[in-house]
Amino acid sequence: MINGTALIGSAEIQTDARFDAINPATGEALTPDFSSAGPDEVAQACGLADAAAIAFADTSPDTRATFLETIAEEIVVIGDALIERAIAETGLPRPRLEGERSRTTGQLRLFAQVLREGSWAQVTIDPALPDRQPLPRPDLRRRHLAIGPVAVFGASNFPLAFSVAGGDTASALAAGCPVVVKGHPAHPGTGELVARAIQKAVAACNLPEGVFSYLPGPSNELGGALVADSRIKAVGFTGSRAGGLALVRIAANRAEPIPVYAEMSSINPVIVFPSALKARGAALAPAFIQSLTMGAGQFCTNPGLLIAVEGQDLDAFIEAAGQALLASHPQPMLSPGIHASFEAGVGALESHQAVTPVARGCVGEGVNQARGALFRTSASQFLSDAALSHEVFGSSSIIVTVSDMAEAATVIATLEGQLTATLILDAADEPLAADIVPILERKVGRILVNGWPTGVEVSHAMVHGGPYPATSDGRTTSVGTLAIDRFLRPICYQSFPTALLPQAIADANPWGVPQRIDGALRLPSTAA
Amino acid sequence: MINGTALIGSAEIQTDARFDAINPATGEALTPDFSSAGPDEVAQACGLADAAAIAFADTSPDTRATFLETIAEEIVVIGDALIERAIAETGLPRPRLEGERSRTTGQLRLFAQVLREGSWAQVTIDPALPDRQPLPRPDLRRRHLAIGPVAVFGASNFPLAFSVAGGDTASALAAGCPVVVKGHPAHPGTGELVARAIQKAVAACNLPEGVFSYLPGPSNELGGALVADSRIKAVGFTGSRAGGLALVRIAANRAEPIPVYAEMSSINPVIVFPSALKARGAALAPAFIQSLTMGAGQFCTNPGLLIAVEGQDLDAFIEAAGQALLASHPQPMLSPGIHASFEAGVGALESHQAVTPVARGCVGEGVNQARGALFRTSASQFLSDAALSHEVFGSSSIIVTVSDMAEAATVIATLEGQLTATLILDAADEPLAADIVPILERKVGRILVNGWPTGVEVSHAMVHGGPYPATSDGRTTSVGTLAIDRFLRPICYQSFPTALLPQAIADANPWGVPQRIDGALRLPSTAA
Repeated sequence: MINGTALIGSAEIQTDARFDAINPATGEALTPDFSSAGPDEVAQACGLADAAAIAFADTSPDTRATFLETIAEEIVVIGDALIERAIAETGLPRPRLEGERSRTTGQLRLFAQVLREGSWAQVTIDPALPDRQPLPRPDLRRRHLAIGPVAVFGASNFPLAFSVAGGDTASALAAGCPVVVKGHPAHPGTGELVARAIQKAVAACNLPEGVFSYLPGPSNELGGALVADSRIKAVGFTGSRAGGLALVRIAANRAEPIPVYAEMSSINPVIVFPSALKARGAALAPAFIQSLTMGAGQFCTNPGLLIAVEGQDLDAFIEAAGQALLASHPQPMLSPGIHASFEAGVGALESHQAVTPVARGCVGEGVNQARGALFRTSASQFLSDAALSHEVFGSSSIIVTVSDMAEAATVIATLEGQLTATLILDAADEPLAADIVPILERKVGRILVNGWPTGVEVSHAMVHGGPYPATSDGRTTSVGTLAIDRFLRPICYQSFPTALLPQAIADANPWGVPQRIDGALRLPSTAA
Repeated sequence: MINGTALIGSAEIQTDARFDAINPATGEALTPDFSSAGPDEVAQACGLADAAAIAFADTSPDTRATFLETIAEEIVVIGDALIERAIAETGLPRPRLEGERSRTTGQLRLFAQVLREGSWAQVTIDPALPDRQPLPRPDLRRRHLAIGPVAVFGASNFPLAFSVAGGDTASALAAGCPVVVKGHPAHPGTGELVARAIQKAVAACNLPEGVFSYLPGPSNELGGALVADSRIKAVGFTGSRAGGLALVRIAANRAEPIPVYAEMSSINPVIVFPSALKARGAALAPAFIQSLTMGAGQFCTNPGLLIAVEGQDLDAFIEAAGQALLASHPQPMLSPGIHASFEAGVGALESHQAVTPVARGCVGEGVNQARGALFRTSASQFLSDAALSHEVFGSSSIIVTVSDMAEAATVIATLEGQLTATLILDAADEPLAADIVPILERKVGRILVNGWPTGVEVSHAMVHGGPYPATSDGRTTSVGTLAIDRFLRPICYQSFPTALLPQAIADANPWGVPQRIDGALRLPSTAA
């Protein structure tokens, strides 16, 4: 089932250059070894994607919905082999990976629903006004169409839900864009299994083979060549700020610059308001540590910053949080490289004179074990060095003590863009929170009340995005159904004869989509 | 009424550095002279815009709709003084400027309608599912909110409809973004009159003064400083490719990169199909020349390229087009600089060995007169030099003769991104056109049948955009109601208590907007 190939259209391609998958829990290489795709494979995959682009963009929403559902079914068919391999390659626990598989198939099926509902096409019709003075109005119709082949970069921290058949792939395929995946080298076997599932679905649905290709490989050059290829028209990426910005630069320097949707870094501030801290600080502390250490802290929405007013209540909270961290259960991180970066980041904080260590998690058995880290500092010290607000990917967090909520607002106003902000509050805190929310609305993609930022629902209202540098493009989301918009662009058809009109905007509304006619939104008749 | 000041919030600021408005029809300077805004004025305007951003974003749609309508009324109140000044500064004829004023006030009022209709806010609610297994779903609500202060660059070729109160300003203000306009130096008096109208509307509507500022000036440094200011969050621009790309670079190199919506260059291919050419070539030729020479060719959608199959029918068309160009009425171009660039571009084509001059318009009286220029070449010669596909801003066009429509498709496939493409066809041509349309859908923002590309309707279905280099961002439009999306970004609110929920997403739907609830789009009750 796993033989270490690249999958280019319907073909399996072995390359001479090879790399190994590493079991992060043991540090050992897994079998088999894997092909490292290079420039030739990039060119082949992009050529097939380009050749498939028009036909795939023109498929009906129902065709693409069925395709997405077929991918979901093929992933389920892999069975436990997928979970076993993912455990071996990532060190993540079985329940997490089983949950992630459900999320992966769930979001494919959710985009199938989105396609059939039809709002994504934004069908807009301004009928001709031949008698209008001083000039007649022509018949004008708008629809949104696939932007073209999309390069998707598998993420290390979601080997299923944000990797080969993850959110970026699902939204791009839903939009009608062929996808070329650059597989993450930390889970190539998992990636290949899923890629084979997509390849089977392409064949089963009689789609052009170029709709999907999978390029495994460990090098940055591979990703760079993919983004530089003139046939790629957009990029989806989840990973480090350095990695994301490198792709942004490559995309901007192309003869034809293209959009890059890079989800990069976030410290996800949590603001604990005074009444809540007083009333339930002792209960909040373990919940905070649970969110911090879940999945070894390897979530984009990990709470890396907590802000609260100094005093006895906060001291008790910090004491309890430190104890909870000490008691937390260690687990291996996703890869030796990620573990090394985490330890380097924690080490820099431990030796930073502006922060005070509170606690670290206990030492686990084996290699690459995550030891959570908690620090505290004051607002003025936090503001003295911008490096303190940079993400340390993993379970590391800084508690910033402020003199009052006005100072909290000052700290928040200096933060860079974030994926999330969390407000922990009681009813008595709401007036204070009302002053903070408008500041956060300019900073973040999602604001939570009395929850924890880890755990991202895949739904219609979700926004997993935010201003730079949380992402490279704060106008969108990478999780949830709005993500399809990233891979569509509007086209207007003026005075088209009936025979040439695309089905999406035909008078008879054969797709049964919502239509905006002369400015008024109309839902399709349920009788249709 | 015109005293040459910058308008920063509610203040009038005179600077020591001055520049003159030139009457392009005479080459003479007009009175008074004008302030050149510099870094101090940029900082003041951006500071006020930043201070106004939260309050303005939080205004109700009705408040902003009334504001836009008040701006329209204040522009009307200026009366004929506005038209007279615009004629003096641009050389454009009175009927054109009166029409442009109507378009300007019309699009302000159209965005008022858009605001009240409410779809722009994209209200999306996923209700809590507390009993869902394995995990409950929290209450999730999404709305789209203003991105922050926007820098708008007035365009030379639409001194009203795409300048101080033009499409970019209207859409940004509609979104709830404060606007800082960098006025175009070719029409500073016209700009000041309109800026004063907006300033009055801000006061009349009791909005924060920072909602609007106007910075006149001739230097590129002024625009660069504005885009570089950290408080600016997006840019709207219409102008040259060099100018647009310079702003894109500045925006990309900021500590926080921001979106730039630059509408830059397009040659707007017209494809004349064989049956139409045979049946009505003689009638098409003068219509083509009329579109080419309208407004001295100073439209973004000017038809700079015409493609048709070689032969007797095409020769007759070219002959008739040449005669129509000779008979066309010359008019002054917008500025001496634009006229000089046009003559340089035409001169380069006249001396280019791969193209053959067909005709030029007659010599007008006075300075800066546009003399239309028509050339012909073969497909192979056209493809031999990419420079032949670059825009010459003004009434210059190249007819490319192809051996058949398959070669036409080859030529089209090599073109860069375009604002428009036009198909001139009869019923018998439709099968041939069906092969061309999918190619054009990947290249352009708007496809017209049996019209001419000049003339852009401001409506819901319009797309005035297109892939690079027609614009710097092909996912959007600068004309029409979809333009509001450029200045909004999504925010998700999770588990918000009722007291903290923004009005837009409150249960009672006080704004009366369409809502997507659990994926299903619901129109507001008409009884509300």
